[in-house]
Amino acid sequence: MSDHPGQPVAPIEAFEPPYYVAVFTTVRSPEQDGYRETNARMEELVREVPGYLGMDHAQTPGGLGITVGYFRDADALTRWRTDAEHRAAQRRGRDQWYQSYTLHVAKVERSHGFSRP
Amino acid sequence: MSDHPGQPVAPIEAFEPPYYVAVFTTVRSPEQDGYRETNARMEELVREVPGYLGMDHAQTPGGLGITVGYFRDADALTRWRTDAEHRAAQRRGRDQWYQSYTLHVAKVERSHGFSRP
Repeated sequence: MSDHPGQPVAPIEAFEPPYYVAVFTTVRSPEQDGYRETNARMEELVREVPGYLGMDHAQTPGGLGITVGYFRDADALTRWRTDAEHRAAQRRGRDQWYQSYTLHVAKVERSHGFSRP
Repeated sequence: MSDHPGQPVAPIEAFEPPYYVAVFTTVRSPEQDGYRETNARMEELVREVPGYLGMDHAQTPGGLGITVGYFRDADALTRWRTDAEHRAAQRRGRDQWYQSYTLHVAKVERSHGFSRP
C-alpha cells in the first residue's frame, strides 16, 4: 500500500481502460487483534492474482479508511474474491475488525493522471 | 466528507447499480494556500449537481488522500466535471495544490454494505 514507511508516496497510475476498481470503504471496530498481520498477508496474496494491477490506500486517523484495488478484468476480481484465504479474512473482518464497510465494484471507462514536472 | 468533526463516521452506503464512482487519488504539494477554502466550496457546490449521491474521503497524514464521489449517471458526472467554478479549482489544483493525482471514472456493477448489528 501507498502508506508503507520507506516507500515513496504516489497514487497508482491511470491504466488504459477498461479495467476494474474495487473500492472498499471501512470504519474499524475497537477489536483490532490480528488485523495488521492478516492485512499484510492479504497484500502479499493479492499480488499473486493474475491481472492484479495495484492498490491505493488512505486512512484518516480514527476515521474512514479507503482501499482501492485495481484489476485488469472481472476474472481477476472473481479470483481474488473467491480465494479461500481471502474469504476467511473477509469473515473475520465482519466478525471482528469492521464496524461497517461498503464495497463498490466498477468498470473504469476513463482515467487520467497528473504529475508535477 | 466523512472526516468532518462532529459528524458520525460511516462509509457511504451501497446504492442500487448502475451508478458511477469518481476515484480521485492525490498527493498534495507543499503549497496549500487557499486549498481548504476551495475544498469546502467544492463540497458545497457538488451537492447542487442533480444525480450527486455522496462522497467518501480518507487522508493518510503526510501521505495519500483518496476521495470517492458517487453519481447516479454519466450526465451527473459530466455536469460536475464541466462546472465553471470546479474547472477553475481543477486548474489551481494542478498549478499549486497537487504533487500528483489520478482520476478513475467507473460504472459500478455490484456493491454491498455491512454494518455491525
